[in-house]
Amino acid sequence: MKAVAEIQVIPIGSGVSVRKEVKRAHGILDAAGLHAQLHSYGTNVEGDLEDIFAAVRQIHETLHEEGTVRLSTFLKIGTRTDKDPDLAGKLF
Amino acid sequence: MKAVAEIQVIPIGSGVSVRKEVKRAHGILDAAGLHAQLHSYGTNVEGDLEDIFAAVRQIHETLHEEGTVRLSTFLKIGTRTDKDPDLAGKLF
Amino acid sequence: MKAVAEIQVIPIGSGVSVRKEVKRAHGILDAAGLHAQLHSYGTNVEGDLEDIFAAVRQIHETLHEEGTVRLSTFLKIGTRTDKDPDLAGKLF
Amino acid sequence: MKAVAEIQVIPIGSGVSVRKEVKRAHGILDAAGLHAQLHSYGTNVEGDLEDIFAAVRQIHETLHEEGTVRLSTFLKIGTRTDKDPDLAGKLF
Repeated sequence: MKAVAEIQVIPIGSGVSVRKEVKRAHGILDAAGLHAQLHSYGTNVEGDLEDIFAAVRQIHETLHEEGTVRLSTFLKIGTRTDKDPDLAGKLF
Repeated sequence: MKAVAEIQVIPIGSGVSVRKEVKRAHGILDAAGLHAQLHSYGTNVEGDLEDIFAAVRQIHETLHEEGTVRLSTFLKIGTRTDKDPDLAGKLF
Repeated sequence: MKAVAEIQVIPIGSGVSVRKEVKRAHGILDAAGLHAQLHSYGTNVEGDLEDIFAAVRQIHETLHEEGTVRLSTFLKIGTRTDKDPDLAGKLF
Repeated sequence: MKAVAEIQVIPIGSGVSVRKEVKRAHGILDAAGLHAQLHSYGTNVEGDLEDIFAAVRQIHETLHEEGTVRLSTFLKIGTRTDKDPDLAGKLF
C-alpha cells in the first residue's frame, strides 16, 4: 500500500544537541529510496508502507547499535484509495 | 525489538463522527495481543515493533476495504536498550 | 473556545529517565483545573483553549527555570461546533 | 519565550480534500509574522510562544466561523535556554 509519512526521531538522554542522530536517521530514509524531504521538524517520505516501516525499524536498530540508549519517534502516516498519495499533492 | 507505542487513527472525509472507525482500529490492536490500552486520544500498546507495525498496516487495509477513503494516523514509538520498555513504566 | 487536548512533554538532554519532568508537567496540568487524565503517552485535558495553552506555557517556563535546557512538546488539540468537546465523548 | 513549532490542522468531516482549510491555516500563520515554512505535513514557524498559540487559536476560530465543524490540530513545540531556537538551526 502506497503511503506518505513524516518521521521525526528524538534521542532521549543523548545530550542537548541531537544533530548527529537526526542526520543519521535522515540518511537511512534517504538511502531507502523513499523520496526523503528534510525539513526542520522531521523528514517527509513517500513509498510503500512496508518500506517506510522497515526504514523506521532500521533507524531504531542502527541508532541503538551506535549507542543511543532511548529513542522516541513521531510518525504521521497518510493513505487513501481515491488516488495515489504523494508529498507534492499535499502542498498547494 | 520490544517497543511501546501510541496509535491514533483519523478517518478524513468520513463524517464528523469517527467513532466507528476508531473502535474498529482499537479492536484490531486489541486482537493483536499488544496489551492495548484505550484512552481519549488513541490506543497505547506494547509489544514487538514488527507486530505493532503489522497491526497498523492491518488497520489501514481493513478500514480502506470497509469504505474509508482517506486515513491519517499518528504514531509515537518508544524503544530503549537499558531495560524493556513497557507502558506501566511510563507512568509514575 | 472549549477544547480537548493531549500534552506530552519531552526533556532533551536531561538524561535517559524523564520521570521527574513528566511528573512536574502533569502536576501543572492537574493544578490548572483541566480535568487532567494521565496515561502512558501524555496527559489528556479538557477546558478552555486559552487555559490549555497557558498551562503548556507554564510547563515550559517552570521546567526551564528548574534547569531543563531543552524541551520538545507534542500537543493534539480538538475543537468542534456541533457539541461541546469532552474527553469522555472520545471513548466508546 | 521564543519557540519553534510545527502546526498541522486536520478538518474532520469536511470531505476527503482538505486543501482549502490547510491553505487557510497556512495563510493565517504566514500573516502572523512567524516565518512560516510550508511543507507536506504542516507549517513550521518560529516566534514568540504566545504569538504561536494566538495564531493557532485564530485558525480554529476562523475555520469554525467559516463552516468547518470539527478540527484536530497537531502541534510540536520546541524551546531551549542555551540559545535562541530557530528553524534553520534544526537542519544540518
